Amino acid sequence: MVVARSIALKAVNTASLWGLNRSRFGGLPKVQTVRALSTVMSPPSKAVVYEHHGPPDSVTRMIELPPVEVQENQVCVKMLAAPINPSDINRIEGVYPVRPQVPAVGGYEGVGEVYSVGSAVKGLSPGDLVIPSPPSSGTWQTYVVKDHDIWHKISKDSPIEYAATVTVNPLTAIRMLEDFNTLSAGDSIVQNGATSIVGQCAIQLARYRGIHSINIIRDRAGSDEVKERLKALGADEVFTESQLEVKNVKSLLSNIPEPALGLNCVGGHAASLVLKFLRQGGTMVTYGGMSKKSVTVSTSSFIFKDLSLRGFWLQKWLSADKAKECRDMVDYLLRLAQERKLKYEMELVPFDKFHSALEKALGKHGSQPKQVIKF
Amino acid sequence: MVVARSIALKAVNTASLWGLNRSRFGGLPKVQTVRALSTVMSPPSKAVVYEHHGPPDSVTRMIELPPVEVQENQVCVKMLAAPINPSDINRIEGVYPVRPQVPAVGGYEGVGEVYSVGSAVKGLSPGDLVIPSPPSSGTWQTYVVKDHDIWHKISKDSPIEYAATVTVNPLTAIRMLEDFNTLSAGDSIVQNGATSIVGQCAIQLARYRGIHSINIIRDRAGSDEVKERLKALGADEVFTESQLEVKNVKSLLSNIPEPALGLNCVGGHAASLVLKFLRQGGTMVTYGGMSKKSVTVSTSSFIFKDLSLRGFWLQKWLSADKAKECRDMVDYLLRLAQERKLKYEMELVPFDKFHSALEKALGKHGSQPKQVIKF
Repeated sequence: MVVARSIALKAVNTASLWGLNRSRFGGLPKVQTVRALSTVMSPPSKAVVYEHHGPPDSVTRMIELPPVEVQENQVCVKMLAAPINPSDINRIEGVYPVRPQVPAVGGYEGVGEVYSVGSAVKGLSPGDLVIPSPPSSGTWQTYVVKDHDIWHKISKDSPIEYAATVTVNPLTAIRMLEDFNTLSAGDSIVQNGATSIVGQCAIQLARYRGIHSINIIRDRAGSDEVKERLKALGADEVFTESQLEVKNVKSLLSNIPEPALGLNCVGGHAASLVLKFLRQGGTMVTYGGMSKKSVTVSTSSFIFKDLSLRGFWLQKWLSADKAKECRDMVDYLLRLAQERKLKYEMELVPFDKFHSALEKALGKHGSQPKQVIKF
Repeated sequence: MVVARSIALKAVNTASLWGLNRSRFGGLPKVQTVRALSTVMSPPSKAVVYEHHGPPDSVTRMIELPPVEVQENQVCVKMLAAPINPSDINRIEGVYPVRPQVPAVGGYEGVGEVYSVGSAVKGLSPGDLVIPSPPSSGTWQTYVVKDHDIWHKISKDSPIEYAATVTVNPLTAIRMLEDFNTLSAGDSIVQNGATSIVGQCAIQLARYRGIHSINIIRDRAGSDEVKERLKALGADEVFTESQLEVKNVKSLLSNIPEPALGLNCVGGHAASLVLKFLRQGGTMVTYGGMSKKSVTVSTSSFIFKDLSLRGFWLQKWLSADKAKECRDMVDYLLRLAQERKLKYEMELVPFDKFHSALEKALGKHGSQPKQVIKF
């Protein structure tokens, strides 16, 4: 299925300048060579790369990368789709605490079809649908070559756009619902940033388990329509921040118990609103800081209300030997997506329109659905 | 040892107006009666009471309370000493979340000598040294009558001033060292408000277990002397807040590992300094808010540094069926005090100088040692 090929190394000078010793970037010959027929090579790949950290729309560019040898334990995947996540942007900006060494190919999750496999690979064959699980760097390219154990084979019926986006946002939502409190049917949660994909997933995953959700959104034009959309997903209550300018926010709840768990991806005042809803002994988990403002907490919230404040970072959770658990959850989430029990809005964009998708992901055109690159 | 007595009920009109149904205040006859010889009565008591919440120096007054009957399961204790704690002040101000119904006798901990016991009481005899354990309201009076199981008999060799103050501050310190992290010899903690009695106890109790302490104090005249005093107690490092205005506070540590546990009783900037010292995955426990400022935390502290923020409230801990454990700890702490392994500065003040002690406790004369009333 795969034959040795000789390819014009259009990008080889750049690649060798980078001096990297990894996959496509490392150990490439400086001149075209003829390889033995038994060598399995990837096709050349089109990739979004950055050589320096900085504003993503300035430092990223699309280049062609030369073929690389597919080692006996490796798998070459033809990528089908990959999202632009906020954490991808932070990695390019250089503000993420763990980031690939530059130069690097962007992207951290995605879905593809097995194109070729190394001679020692078992259990994966060309045509299989796979995702990198746990997710890993370098998904913004047409062909990705990685060790076979990175790849998780998923059902061929999985909706591509959900398969491309399942390992970061929905997984974050499910772990936060599981890891901080023991929630049972009839309990409730409260969250800000409820329109984010994590927020939408939290609503649906909670509802699926009989857990109520109280949701806080920004005040802006169209908030009534946003409320309806979130309620259609299963939200019990949706409030704009200004609606919560009352002395006792809990008086606004109709037949919903005070929440034991709060999710915060905004910070500042919106985090204080989550804290106001929490019941005695409750926990607020911070997983984002969209407002770029800190979280402020009164002393009495800690001492007398016994609140706990924690954080969640998927990358840390995944580093704790959770590969198996991660894959079970991916399968579970993709089944829900297939059954339309888990849904969120995405915009599929052709790869050659990457930079316009990036502009949208950077918020340069107002609120936009999740941008998912289609290769 | 105890005979029925008829006492002029100097305070009976006030007491009956209060309409209380407890101990001295409840069910008192409105006129003097002659009781059967078998009835055990307490002596009359001199007490600091408040009828309304408000500024403690305005709303408290000293009155004489009439004798009360000592029921068969009760014990009458002649109080020897009782401190004025910040939480006593907050209870009188009405800003404490749990407080006795007014009118009430002030005070929450103390030590006394058994004066008489009800007919069914076993294990306690006149002359025994006792403390209310868990602590309970109404210790600012010369004779306290409470159920026998409130009283914990302690060693007669216990230093009175430590026995009077052991159940609130030292117990808070020991629980915070135990309940949030598993600390081992060689580990370290960081705290602000290190000169408080809880702070001093934390230094000594940590040191006793081979745990290092990093201590933060306010900038003020005499801070060098304060540093020396805390080091004499066993503090490894003592910094003023202004000394910590550096980019990397951890560079100031000499051979002390980054702390996993932080204790905060100040709030505001001083709480941020504790957070700066904490290691990845560390916990800060808030047990006070002396600056009356909130705690502010960055989003990245939660997500990437994985910090947890918790609170500690002794009264909640004690309500969780911890009476036995509480008493074991009291005995342990008093043994340490007796061996001079646990010490802190106190000022013993005669009961009739209560209001001047109260002024000092209210901070009206600058920084003062813990005020302990001697009856």
